[in-house]
Amino acid sequence: MSERRIVTSGALHGFIRAAFEACDLPAEHAERIAGLMVEADLIGADNHGVFRLPQYVRRIKAGGVAVQPTIAVLKETDATALVDGDNAMGHLVMHRAAEIAIEKAARRGVAWVGARNSNHAGPAALYASMPLARDMIGLYIAVGNANHMPPWGGIDMLLSTNPIAIAVPALEEPPIVLDMATSVAAYGKVKGAAQRGETMPEGWMMDRQGRPLTDPKRADEGFVLPIGGYKGYALALLFGLLAGTLNGAAMGSEVIDFNADDKSPTNTGQLVVALKLDAFGPVDAFKRSVDRVIREMRGSARLPGVDAIRVPGEQSHRRRRERLAGGIPIHPALAAQLDKLSDQLEIAPLAGT
Amino acid sequence: MSERRIVTSGALHGFIRAAFEACDLPAEHAERIAGLMVEADLIGADNHGVFRLPQYVRRIKAGGVAVQPTIAVLKETDATALVDGDNAMGHLVMHRAAEIAIEKAARRGVAWVGARNSNHAGPAALYASMPLARDMIGLYIAVGNANHMPPWGGIDMLLSTNPIAIAVPALEEPPIVLDMATSVAAYGKVKGAAQRGETMPEGWMMDRQGRPLTDPKRADEGFVLPIGGYKGYALALLFGLLAGTLNGAAMGSEVIDFNADDKSPTNTGQLVVALKLDAFGPVDAFKRSVDRVIREMRGSARLPGVDAIRVPGEQSHRRRRERLAGGIPIHPALAAQLDKLSDQLEIAPLAGT
Repeated sequence: MSERRIVTSGALHGFIRAAFEACDLPAEHAERIAGLMVEADLIGADNHGVFRLPQYVRRIKAGGVAVQPTIAVLKETDATALVDGDNAMGHLVMHRAAEIAIEKAARRGVAWVGARNSNHAGPAALYASMPLARDMIGLYIAVGNANHMPPWGGIDMLLSTNPIAIAVPALEEPPIVLDMATSVAAYGKVKGAAQRGETMPEGWMMDRQGRPLTDPKRADEGFVLPIGGYKGYALALLFGLLAGTLNGAAMGSEVIDFNADDKSPTNTGQLVVALKLDAFGPVDAFKRSVDRVIREMRGSARLPGVDAIRVPGEQSHRRRRERLAGGIPIHPALAAQLDKLSDQLEIAPLAGT
Repeated sequence: MSERRIVTSGALHGFIRAAFEACDLPAEHAERIAGLMVEADLIGADNHGVFRLPQYVRRIKAGGVAVQPTIAVLKETDATALVDGDNAMGHLVMHRAAEIAIEKAARRGVAWVGARNSNHAGPAALYASMPLARDMIGLYIAVGNANHMPPWGGIDMLLSTNPIAIAVPALEEPPIVLDMATSVAAYGKVKGAAQRGETMPEGWMMDRQGRPLTDPKRADEGFVLPIGGYKGYALALLFGLLAGTLNGAAMGSEVIDFNADDKSPTNTGQLVVALKLDAFGPVDAFKRSVDRVIREMRGSARLPGVDAIRVPGEQSHRRRRERLAGGIPIHPALAAQLDKLSDQLEIAPLAGT
């Protein structure tokens, strides 16, 4: 049990699908969520893939997520829609929202689709990337599922580290895919440091007296810091208004901490924008210009000690190729949890290669 | 000349309008630019209002900006447009772009309008705020007019501190208006510190060896730092692709430093998005929720030593009221420049109250 297990994406997909089917999700839904969660693991969003499965199952078993939801469009115009997720798994809601955005943008050039009554949907990059295949730019913003930040100058936890993802296609280069929280370090990184018994660098967290907090085991005594101080706070606030408040979803004190509460509907809000490249000019010319920009950045002279300059999404792209070929590593602690889960759900265990 | 001059917004408006008319801009254009520049001074965007007038006039005189432009829509769909600014003053181009966005969003729920062949347009907040009066959310992104940032890990100046503005209406509270550069400190702040002979805090700039740079007089030996390190670099890059590359405008090495070069067309790219509130639900209910969020943030318990928690746009709103009532302060050095300009253009000087 102490060895790292390597699994194929196919095996992981089958395991996740079986887990959700054992929780009474329709086969089609289980299949869709499994596909998106495996994609998260493939691109290296390790805190957002199968890592979340035990929590998802716990929440479903506690009645905190609808297993037979009716996801519906509540309101729409030619280029907008408001989707009601009916408390479904967020992956299902955001996949549907992105599909609607792509469909509408294909006809109108751009579309903005928001959702309420959704749930945690995994990495933001997944949904921002969906429009890429249709020669569109994608943008995704979400209200996070736990408040780990106060407003700047405050100590009450009123904001999540609301993330943004933007995906832009290139020609010969892989697409540029930004996926970032508005905090210096995502809360998952804090938990990771605690697990490994490491100290955090100054600048990640602060305690309620305003002193740097570097012991991740004391995370409860403070909060994560926004990027650029006041600026990151402002971004988290505005992203929350766009993805939450505008959609009639939770924001501020309404946000449910889904780590601590398995039962209450989270009323999570998210949004997807799709923007059609050819509404602005020839598609290939644009993609060629993106290639040029990527190569300019990479080709910059470097600071002493820097071995390479990267563009957003480059590492995920590389990791995806590696993991498709060589498998996905599962941390021993997670593998043990998944084995327990397979016992509990009476499904076949996740086999290594 | 060593005293600070206080001017009314009306006097400032008349002076700016006269200056542009003396430069052969059509009266209607001079009037529009003056209105937007005064608005910049009213909201306290002091580096983006009349402060820029001498530079604008210098550029016009050098032939770097078209004085009789034909701003035209190059390409459009129901919900998008690409505007060719014909190298006009950026204020004219972006005012037009925002108008088109508002018109299209009124019919389709959302609209995304990009521009090429534009120029510096003053503070981002101006154009993000235009949709507010029509019960819409506004978003504005621009490629800055000088590259002061390298890609993260690099030392070549390939990125501007590309700003974003987002404006969201409230009910009883003033609207929330975020307007920020993607760097820790805007370059104007560095110049301001140099003028006043001050030292900069660590974290604003770095030299080419990766050491903190705190003497603003040595700004040429380094570069400004993005918010959140790699994250701010990624935001500046993505904003540049959306506002520049997608519109066929300058990005990366193509960006002209408009402080150093008065003649070359800058081919500045910007974008405006307008999003109609009632496409997502009842307008007043949304605005009331924004009020609630604002009051929650403000009402948070505070860190020791913090006297108030603010929301973005609050200080600009307050300053606007103060300056409308009490006038706009003009720094003595700027007043002297404006007096010289009035001699040069043979217009009446800017009179204090």
